[in-house]
Amino acid sequence: MRNCSFVRFTWEGATLRNVELEDSVETMSLGSGDNVRAVSWTAEGLRLLDQRRLPQQEVRGLYADAGSVAGAIQDMVVRGAPAIGITAAYAVVLAAREAYARLPATWRDAMAPDLQRLAQARPTAVNLRWALERMGRAMEGLEGDPEPMLLAEARRIHEEDIAANLRMGELGADLIGEPCDVLTHCNTGSLATGGYGTALGVIRSAYQRGMLENVYADETRPWLQGARLTAWELIKDGIPVRLIADAAAAHLMKQGRVRWVIVGSDRIAANGDVANKIGTYGLAVNARYHGVRFMVVAPTSTVDMAVADGSRIPIEDRSPEEVLALSGHPVAAPGARAWNPAFDVTPAGLVDAIVTERGVVRQPNREKMEDMIAG
Amino acid sequence: MRNCSFVRFTWEGATLRNVELEDSVETMSLGSGDNVRAVSWTAEGLRLLDQRRLPQQEVRGLYADAGSVAGAIQDMVVRGAPAIGITAAYAVVLAAREAYARLPATWRDAMAPDLQRLAQARPTAVNLRWALERMGRAMEGLEGDPEPMLLAEARRIHEEDIAANLRMGELGADLIGEPCDVLTHCNTGSLATGGYGTALGVIRSAYQRGMLENVYADETRPWLQGARLTAWELIKDGIPVRLIADAAAAHLMKQGRVRWVIVGSDRIAANGDVANKIGTYGLAVNARYHGVRFMVVAPTSTVDMAVADGSRIPIEDRSPEEVLALSGHPVAAPGARAWNPAFDVTPAGLVDAIVTERGVVRQPNREKMEDMIAG
Repeated sequence: MRNCSFVRFTWEGATLRNVELEDSVETMSLGSGDNVRAVSWTAEGLRLLDQRRLPQQEVRGLYADAGSVAGAIQDMVVRGAPAIGITAAYAVVLAAREAYARLPATWRDAMAPDLQRLAQARPTAVNLRWALERMGRAMEGLEGDPEPMLLAEARRIHEEDIAANLRMGELGADLIGEPCDVLTHCNTGSLATGGYGTALGVIRSAYQRGMLENVYADETRPWLQGARLTAWELIKDGIPVRLIADAAAAHLMKQGRVRWVIVGSDRIAANGDVANKIGTYGLAVNARYHGVRFMVVAPTSTVDMAVADGSRIPIEDRSPEEVLALSGHPVAAPGARAWNPAFDVTPAGLVDAIVTERGVVRQPNREKMEDMIAG
Repeated sequence: MRNCSFVRFTWEGATLRNVELEDSVETMSLGSGDNVRAVSWTAEGLRLLDQRRLPQQEVRGLYADAGSVAGAIQDMVVRGAPAIGITAAYAVVLAAREAYARLPATWRDAMAPDLQRLAQARPTAVNLRWALERMGRAMEGLEGDPEPMLLAEARRIHEEDIAANLRMGELGADLIGEPCDVLTHCNTGSLATGGYGTALGVIRSAYQRGMLENVYADETRPWLQGARLTAWELIKDGIPVRLIADAAAAHLMKQGRVRWVIVGSDRIAANGDVANKIGTYGLAVNARYHGVRFMVVAPTSTVDMAVADGSRIPIEDRSPEEVLALSGHPVAAPGARAWNPAFDVTPAGLVDAIVTERGVVRQPNREKMEDMIAG
């Protein structure tokens, strides 16, 4: 990875011992889970918390060029649709900085390859394209050094995402009628967003209101975002969380243990079909079968009105190795092959509510989605 | 573990290099997957292939007393309902041998604690109780050394299981109308039975007939029986197998990739409700939703007519550690809790066919199950 230096952290009780590669040593204390920041801009460049190594290690990488950031998105150093969008926005700042330094008269053309590489880093989450388009509009009419204006726009994108999450937290918590347990899938918290989280934001808000007693979290193979990241965030916040194997969700529902399934999304089509982490669709089918309600929480940056329905959403197939190994340890029989789709699509008909920062769409369809986006 | 010596094997190409602990060295060649024997009786005692260590290591343990065998069942050295039953039958021989040597006049009373420990080793698979009851009947009226007669009965149980599997393989393959791909869950092959397998036996038979093109196998967290054991057996047999994360099954069905889900069972209630490895129930719900057919393959030793329906089947909760770690490596956030039910119950209404060695029960209910058992 080019232009990338690392800072490594190791735990010492509740305090982190931070060892810079150049051997300078400092300590820092991490805030609660909702204050964890997966993406942060510093004077030196973009800092990304390496989510592949959590929870065993907290490693932050410093990225000074857009190409490295594209690689980090592809390799899942940073993941979660909103966090990917924010990361891409900051990467545009890095691309513009580099292009302007090199070719001040034609910096827009000079950064085109970087923008293209960023756009192609991951196919399913539309927030990536959304952020690039928004940064593209901010580039229009700029004169002189583009960095200050672009950085301001990227920061706005980041701040608006956190504000959207806080708003969705309230709207989603309003939907939960009485205290109950809920089930969530993958990680949709601070790590997956600008901060606070989408589905996990609703869970945080509901817990603060005394509406949640216990959160069940699918471990979410193959990447174990639930076991590694969601549990990590909720434990920091003192919210009771219990992990289950993904395959245990139907049995959980049959026992009447949860009243809601609450998930995020990587792309929502114009008709309300929802692409999200593999496993979401099977949960939705089971939720409907068991009378458990199904809530999708995502900012409008995740809604893609240009895609008529879920069948048009590109689904990323990732490396079979993610299934055949776990944290680098081979788990499958030697010679085994695997199929590893990273997402699936839940039809709108199985969704009880889509929560965005602009409001709640119950029993989503195209008309209601258009009204929500317009309103 | 008491009275237990180990033999370790390491791979050398297609040949196994077998290193005894006492440094004597021999080599052996493993047969195809359907010839693998998880349980085998030798002059020295009972040999169990340690399935916790597959596929990385092939370790066989020699068990000379029933208490150790009970521990091996509990710890999943041996697993799979039919294999557990066969193992328990052989353990009764060990218990009787020891009791008769110690107290030849009252050996039946002397072995009671061993029988009790065996009966309690795992609660869900009824084959354990079935085997103990059958061995109990064989003990009636025995005079003199009980070992020869009991060993003959245990061997019969073992041989009958293999014969039942071969018969079920044919009956199940008959149900598959035209060449297609299928999905299976957990491991139901030679390793889980006396040999050949239940659901995997059907898959073997169907493949031999040219009816199967590809087998999708759920990895089956938390124990990864699919990734470790099913893939291992099918690769040995040259049957094309592709692993998926458990959560990818619904997406697989939606894409129309499989026409059948074929699973085994740990206990079938009198009305046709099916207890099986956690995740089976969610698959059945999704199969019904997608018009995929659902086949359960189990010998009549798995049918418990004393249990009216699935709600009465005890479901074993196993240690949270099985979810929080993987092959001994911690995977979850430190401090995380987990809920780890090892089985779930699929109602008869979601099952298209139960295949036993006595025949096929379509759309099972109590009346049809009684007819099948009687017939």
